[in-house]
Amino acid sequence: MDFSKLNGLIPAIVQDEISSEVLMVGFMNEDAWRITRDTGYVTFFSRTRNTLWTKGETSGNRLKVRDVLIDCDEDTALFKVRREGDGNVCHLNRVSCFCTLIESAQAEERR
Amino acid sequence: MDFSKLNGLIPAIVQDEISSEVLMVGFMNEDAWRITRDTGYVTFFSRTRNTLWTKGETSGNRLKVRDVLIDCDEDTALFKVRREGDGNVCHLNRVSCFCTLIESAQAEERR
Repeated sequence: MDFSKLNGLIPAIVQDEISSEVLMVGFMNEDAWRITRDTGYVTFFSRTRNTLWTKGETSGNRLKVRDVLIDCDEDTALFKVRREGDGNVCHLNRVSCFCTLIESAQAEERR
Repeated sequence: MDFSKLNGLIPAIVQDEISSEVLMVGFMNEDAWRITRDTGYVTFFSRTRNTLWTKGETSGNRLKVRDVLIDCDEDTALFKVRREGDGNVCHLNRVSCFCTLIESAQAEERR
């Protein structure tokens, strides 16, 4: 993986393996990437706390890696996961962090 | 949107509105974000070329914005799009940039 474009980080997209819902986006440095691959659980590098964190390490809502895909530039990774614990990925107790819909052509068409 | 965490950029995830396939990930600065919202076509900021680029501006394979979602931290955007042109998003003439599967639990289970 190419960690050079973003000061040692790559974006990591997390997608539900069943519903294909995008659950969250985090960043991984080389250690987080290696730990994720070795343990089978998604681990990020927190930019604000400047530390590694395995998603769900306290809540139990871990993200079990199922498929790993990388993009054509090898600077972004896509993880298809199984949600563990209560299945909520967002700290606001929602399945996905992407819970604010600010524009919707589909909703407008249904009107 | 919070552009402060990544030197003026946010990651922008592009997902097919029908198949839910993740097609690509790019970055937007405030101009790219505004142009995308105003025109209805996904526009990125290229970190390598240091310029704005509307996806598909030469190939015709533009990405028509359908739904826009933002995450709980307001530092990442998810665009659900309709693929125009020949429908290939990746410069390698594939639908998605995420075409390299490097690990698959699902494939292993099917064996």
